[in-house]
Amino acid sequence: MTTRLERLREGMREAKFDALICRLPENVLYLTDYWAQLGLSMAVITREGGPILFVPEVEADYADKSWADVRPFGWGLLKDRDLYTTFKEGLLEVRDKLNLAKATIGIEQGFEVMAPPYNVGELYVPATPTMAIFREVFSEGELKDSTELLQGMRAFKTPFEIERLKVTNELASFGLAAFVENAAPGRTEAQVGAAVEEVVRSLGQGYKGVRLARAIAEVRAGVGSYHASLWVASRDYRIREEDIVMIELAVVADGYWSDLTRVVIAGEPTKKQREVYTAVLEAQKAAIEKMRPGVSFSEVDNAARQVIERAGYGQHFVHITGHGIGFRYHEFIPLLAPQAEGKLAAGMTSSVEPGIYIPDWGGIRIEDNIVVTDDEPEYLSTFDRTL
Amino acid sequence: MTTRLERLREGMREAKFDALICRLPENVLYLTDYWAQLGLSMAVITREGGPILFVPEVEADYADKSWADVRPFGWGLLKDRDLYTTFKEGLLEVRDKLNLAKATIGIEQGFEVMAPPYNVGELYVPATPTMAIFREVFSEGELKDSTELLQGMRAFKTPFEIERLKVTNELASFGLAAFVENAAPGRTEAQVGAAVEEVVRSLGQGYKGVRLARAIAEVRAGVGSYHASLWVASRDYRIREEDIVMIELAVVADGYWSDLTRVVIAGEPTKKQREVYTAVLEAQKAAIEKMRPGVSFSEVDNAARQVIERAGYGQHFVHITGHGIGFRYHEFIPLLAPQAEGKLAAGMTSSVEPGIYIPDWGGIRIEDNIVVTDDEPEYLSTFDRTL
Repeated sequence: MTTRLERLREGMREAKFDALICRLPENVLYLTDYWAQLGLSMAVITREGGPILFVPEVEADYADKSWADVRPFGWGLLKDRDLYTTFKEGLLEVRDKLNLAKATIGIEQGFEVMAPPYNVGELYVPATPTMAIFREVFSEGELKDSTELLQGMRAFKTPFEIERLKVTNELASFGLAAFVENAAPGRTEAQVGAAVEEVVRSLGQGYKGVRLARAIAEVRAGVGSYHASLWVASRDYRIREEDIVMIELAVVADGYWSDLTRVVIAGEPTKKQREVYTAVLEAQKAAIEKMRPGVSFSEVDNAARQVIERAGYGQHFVHITGHGIGFRYHEFIPLLAPQAEGKLAAGMTSSVEPGIYIPDWGGIRIEDNIVVTDDEPEYLSTFDRTL
Repeated sequence: MTTRLERLREGMREAKFDALICRLPENVLYLTDYWAQLGLSMAVITREGGPILFVPEVEADYADKSWADVRPFGWGLLKDRDLYTTFKEGLLEVRDKLNLAKATIGIEQGFEVMAPPYNVGELYVPATPTMAIFREVFSEGELKDSTELLQGMRAFKTPFEIERLKVTNELASFGLAAFVENAAPGRTEAQVGAAVEEVVRSLGQGYKGVRLARAIAEVRAGVGSYHASLWVASRDYRIREEDIVMIELAVVADGYWSDLTRVVIAGEPTKKQREVYTAVLEAQKAAIEKMRPGVSFSEVDNAARQVIERAGYGQHFVHITGHGIGFRYHEFIPLLAPQAEGKLAAGMTSSVEPGIYIPDWGGIRIEDNIVVTDDEPEYLSTFDRTL
């Protein structure tokens, strides 16, 4: 806890923010380690004060008082006031108590990608009504975009966060085991994905203290796996003998995400399937081996790319090698891509996911999550990678 | 199709919009009947032209060309440009071709609640980077909030939309059947919810032409069902004999949502459980019976409230009677609540969900989705309501 907020406050001083107000679930989590169920919460931190967490009273039990000054509020019932009145009064009080009237306040203006709260069925997003409150409360202060600061800070995971991510990856392993079991001829892609989601959610709630867990599992099989070079939805296509079957699996446990891909063959792999799979796996190993502090993002990408080029499939590795992971399914730092600027540092967590996609044949990708340490890179995900 | 867009264009003329640009999946759906997988699409409509739909090429097959001029674009692979360049160039072309340089352009500035696209794991939300493009492209025009117009138009469902909502509700029925089967002593709330989600997703893809389906099922059992007067997460609590077990079920099929609640007793119901259940069911019937064109929202709420008051549980019916449903899990029109302003009209779809929540005992709610017609109100959801 201390490490995370100490670093954030250091960053606030450098970037000249007096306070940050967060409403996006991923940033509320970053400030308070509370993962919203509905996304109706708000967190405030100053260089010395807070974090203060405004949270719907029905979820208050999920907030950790050792992290934040928790302020439950009523919402949604006939007895309750509207959210904007609640937030406005809360902010007015915070402003006056913490002397923020003329302060520089960081707000999440630039986030165009966001992680959902636990309830993925509906999202609460700060738009003009929220901005109007910020402007009114801080009419004498300055509102400034905090996106870069928050994204930059979040890129470095503390040991506490690494432990949480490992738990998420353990849960994901149960899902991958269900995938291997279910990816058989006759089953549809959607059925396999649904079975994986069911297992993760069933086992997740309660696993090593996890309170909220969910998986999003998309499966592509046969020639259709060619299109899985990007995130694509499962279909009602039925798996056939000898098909490639690929799963793209996101798992979240209390706000900490993993992003994994595995491939199985529905039957005995063909020679070409083995050859492509081996090239991808070797590419992944080569990239991971490179992941040390000080190594440039593009160098890691290049390590994977060279292996695939040498195997003769260079033109079919059509995407980047990896991206940040942790407080969201995809984070922007690091970006393991050709020409990407930036260098790895200890604490960075990244997907490593080379793939080969051949038209009218299919696609094979292997994806794991890795943390950069001062020593060897460490796998957060340990599920079997043999074909 | 015609009806929906004709009405929208009429609304645009009245509210003095020359064009609308939509990026939120629910509004892109409203304009084009295409439900985004990732939420990276954009739709434009003018009073005479369009809709034009910009859609990632990997999803283009999901867009219906009879609804919109579909413009696929590359995104996400090494070969592709960034999204902002794509959107900016697309908008520049649209602006010049459709003479919109000095037009009044409606943008979704006021939406603070949004429906997710099919991929619920990560959301793309228009924020300052998107606004910067709108401002640049329409520097001589006027940007105006379209939230009220879109919400108002969406409140009236066409026969086409009603049919789609019925299909969603049929899928939800499979989930409710799984709920009844699984809500047994020994199972955890999360396990029951996960089993329901699995069934809906497994059966959904391919059902009556549905291509993308998903459920979000939260279960609360025992005394803990008291807190389910609001949306609350499933826990690892194990259902016990005689427990109330309540499911809050959202189902989405190709962008059309249902919102249903059922209650079962894990064993033989007690006298009080029967009494409370009956009061809730009678309240729901009384409210639905009232739902005719011209009847005020508050009158419908009152009809339910009176039944529950007469049964002696008035102080325990702590929330509104219903809300709009269709293009999102919760829409704002109608709002069946005390003091709510507005009157029902044919084509409006609403949840009707009275409930009684007693501290240290539990909660019982029954929720169905209803469409107002010129004649009798019609149930969109037909799953059994006997205890």
